[in-house]
Amino acid sequence: MNRIFLILIIIGVPVSVVGSFLHWPPILMFILDCVTIVGLASFMGRATESLAIVAGPSIGGLLNATFGNAVELIISIFAIKAGLINVVLASITGSIIGNLLLVGGLSFFVGGLKYKRQRFNIYEARHNAGMLIFAIVVSFVFPLIFSMELGEADAKILSIGISIVMIIIYLAALFFKLVTHRGVYKQSADEAEHDGEEEPEWSAWKAITVLAGATIAVGYISENLVHTFEPVAKSFGWTELFIGVIIVAIVGNAAEHASAILMAYKNRMTVTVEIAIGSTLQIAMFVAPLLVLLSLAFPTFMPLIFSVPELIVMILAVFLTIAITNDGDTNWFEGAILLAAYLIMGFGFFLL
Amino acid sequence: MNRIFLILIIIGVPVSVVGSFLHWPPILMFILDCVTIVGLASFMGRATESLAIVAGPSIGGLLNATFGNAVELIISIFAIKAGLINVVLASITGSIIGNLLLVGGLSFFVGGLKYKRQRFNIYEARHNAGMLIFAIVVSFVFPLIFSMELGEADAKILSIGISIVMIIIYLAALFFKLVTHRGVYKQSADEAEHDGEEEPEWSAWKAITVLAGATIAVGYISENLVHTFEPVAKSFGWTELFIGVIIVAIVGNAAEHASAILMAYKNRMTVTVEIAIGSTLQIAMFVAPLLVLLSLAFPTFMPLIFSVPELIVMILAVFLTIAITNDGDTNWFEGAILLAAYLIMGFGFFLL
Amino acid sequence: MNRIFLILIIIGVPVSVVGSFLHWPPILMFILDCVTIVGLASFMGRATESLAIVAGPSIGGLLNATFGNAVELIISIFAIKAGLINVVLASITGSIIGNLLLVGGLSFFVGGLKYKRQRFNIYEARHNAGMLIFAIVVSFVFPLIFSMELGEADAKILSIGISIVMIIIYLAALFFKLVTHRGVYKQSADEAEHDGEEEPEWSAWKAITVLAGATIAVGYISENLVHTFEPVAKSFGWTELFIGVIIVAIVGNAAEHASAILMAYKNRMTVTVEIAIGSTLQIAMFVAPLLVLLSLAFPTFMPLIFSVPELIVMILAVFLTIAITNDGDTNWFEGAILLAAYLIMGFGFFLL
Repeated sequence: MNRIFLILIIIGVPVSVVGSFLHWPPILMFILDCVTIVGLASFMGRATESLAIVAGPSIGGLLNATFGNAVELIISIFAIKAGLINVVLASITGSIIGNLLLVGGLSFFVGGLKYKRQRFNIYEARHNAGMLIFAIVVSFVFPLIFSMELGEADAKILSIGISIVMIIIYLAALFFKLVTHRGVYKQSADEAEHDGEEEPEWSAWKAITVLAGATIAVGYISENLVHTFEPVAKSFGWTELFIGVIIVAIVGNAAEHASAILMAYKNRMTVTVEIAIGSTLQIAMFVAPLLVLLSLAFPTFMPLIFSVPELIVMILAVFLTIAITNDGDTNWFEGAILLAAYLIMGFGFFLL
Repeated sequence: MNRIFLILIIIGVPVSVVGSFLHWPPILMFILDCVTIVGLASFMGRATESLAIVAGPSIGGLLNATFGNAVELIISIFAIKAGLINVVLASITGSIIGNLLLVGGLSFFVGGLKYKRQRFNIYEARHNAGMLIFAIVVSFVFPLIFSMELGEADAKILSIGISIVMIIIYLAALFFKLVTHRGVYKQSADEAEHDGEEEPEWSAWKAITVLAGATIAVGYISENLVHTFEPVAKSFGWTELFIGVIIVAIVGNAAEHASAILMAYKNRMTVTVEIAIGSTLQIAMFVAPLLVLLSLAFPTFMPLIFSVPELIVMILAVFLTIAITNDGDTNWFEGAILLAAYLIMGFGFFLL
Repeated sequence: MNRIFLILIIIGVPVSVVGSFLHWPPILMFILDCVTIVGLASFMGRATESLAIVAGPSIGGLLNATFGNAVELIISIFAIKAGLINVVLASITGSIIGNLLLVGGLSFFVGGLKYKRQRFNIYEARHNAGMLIFAIVVSFVFPLIFSMELGEADAKILSIGISIVMIIIYLAALFFKLVTHRGVYKQSADEAEHDGEEEPEWSAWKAITVLAGATIAVGYISENLVHTFEPVAKSFGWTELFIGVIIVAIVGNAAEHASAILMAYKNRMTVTVEIAIGSTLQIAMFVAPLLVLLSLAFPTFMPLIFSVPELIVMILAVFLTIAITNDGDTNWFEGAILLAAYLIMGFGFFLL
């Protein structure tokens, strides 16, 4: 699979650059950019992974937690620069429901076709439940509820304040997991074993070079990509909301999604859940508030205020995920439920 | 108890027929029809049960899952035919909160008076939690949220799409329970034992005859019943909503309710929970979407859009039930809480 | 610490009385009254505790459950008398989120700094989860939802009806805990041991005298305190909502809060959780409905209808608490999450 991503990049990057200079039609550029970013995201993921292993669990965990959603962060920054606040909020929504319902659902379903019951660390699942409720249900609902009765200036202050609190809690969660409570909530020797067997794929220097090169390429392509949204939406009769919720979210996470499903197929469910829910928490507690703070540097401020359908969709995804994962046991049917929920939600946003 | 139901039918059916020809006053007919249907529903339940045992667990489970709420389905179809969409949605609401809060509550309460702690299959409870969240919280909330911003045509398409997904998931759940994972989540040998001891009450032919006869009778009486709603509501100062939520829901499920409580009294809580929550899921994931699709054949389309109070009442009932049953352990106080919630909800709909 | 509270009273009570006669400025009186009430509340708590031990577990539990939030009850009655309905509802909201998030959060955080993992009775936690959902999510949401479509007279009847049901369920919960199921859900011998070691601090007569004296003093000071709210809110640019949610709630519970945190520091988490969640339930299921019924005696009726932000804040606090405590295991990070949620909520109410 890595070979496919390599080919995507070798062809995609130069062609995208040429296309942007020659002003090729937006639909072509949209497809080209999306595909190339999928390839680049996969390389960034592998580079981060290698660096993380070299750096040891604490710093490595921090690296993974910071660069794990770098692609989404970069695309979003260029979208904010272009004033597309609603697309960014929609793509955050899309990433969250995509990770929980699509990745989680596909993983549980595919893994469940091979194994009757798959188990994962139940402490982790419950720890995550608390954080999901905090990040998505509490922190995202608040600004909306209070903003209804606040002036714009106060709503802005509230968004900034909540964003700062969320980032602090995100860092505290890393500190908890990597320093004060590392290994405390391990469930079995079996899991610990897996941890030791990893070797970095690339050397530190190679990884840093790849990471730097891919980041620049993603940045360049993202800037072009965000300008294709409006014409593409018009051509296909899509809303910008649909592009944000479904397309951008899938493009930014495709490589990661593939590896979550692969892990489920190998019955390493703790890793699968770590990717699906861990990535959700990273988007909700780190990428989203960081974008709010970064948007202060741009002409258009992005408040932490989602639309009501976005918010409800995220909250429902959280409750469904908690209800499904709470027993630390999955099967194909639980995967099917998550996928069905994703399908319904996607259909709703498509019609909107 | 079966003798009482038999008497109800022997007297009720002919008298209802005579009454409908002679145009007896609606209040009398309303009471007569309700009582007769309670009796007929009990016979349909026993016939289905007998057929299910003869047919073996897989086909039998399917039979139970399809005919288990046949009475409600029939009454609802005639109500849709009469254009009483709101009454049908109200009766779905009523069946769901009735099964979860009234049946669950009475069972836990009555059982709890005899036994200090009653236990049931915790895997089943958690499996059900995921499905309740999916069926009621996710699938029912979506159409309402999105419909607020959709045109009528799109809202109709969304209702149809969601209904199809729900029925597929319902069939998948049966496939999961009866085929791929039968017996996988059994908790103890004790439970397995109970499964074997059942003998069909009636032969297959007798059961089919009873089922056919009772179905025709229920259909005939339902058609008359739905036309009494409006005058009865006016006479008593009730709303049609109250008739749907409380009266129709209780009438359609009375026999089933009785057996759930009886099972709780015999400390067979897994069966009790199966009836209360299983019946809820059947209404939510099968009867409701099927009615949406069937309504396409009638002049008035029934969208899957509940009123806000109905929706909130159902969601609260689901969360309360999950919180109460999640530990696989019940007692009289937990039953009292469910009953109190039902009382409050009923009072609200009465005043509305 | 008891000495500090004693000094607060010895100085505070006479000075408050003098101040109220001399019409000192409201801000000074507000601070003076608050501080004095904190001291008095601590003495009332100790007196109730002593009486409860003398009276034995059943009657003692009833005493604790009735007088545990006597201070809030008294302040609230005088606030209702002064027509400050919104402040009372806000202070109920504040007590609930204060107990769940601030007290729970501080306790788990402080205890977690000393112990890696702290455990408490998991049955108790789950029992409480059901009651929290019933009391706050079900009973508080209903009046709001239905009142939107009801006339004022019907809304009043609904509030009264729900209040009566809540008090009955509260008494049933006491009966369950103290009579029918005392000791049934104990987790370990260790917990039982702790129960026996308590000796009353004061004799019954001394306790009754202290309780009577402190109650009168709290009453007198509360009457003055509630009249300072308006001028103080104006001076500081606070809303009356903020005073109710944050200030009154903290003042009424300060002593109790201190002992919850102390217990966490001693690793007696079952007691900590009992105080934090038990006190929440007492406010929600006993104090709030009792105030609704008592308000019938005053010119302004207080319906059980919270504002939307208040209601959402309480519901979120309940869900977060359940997600955190559901596994019967806490650590400093879980405390930090609760505190962060409290901070965000307080900030929102401050801006409102």
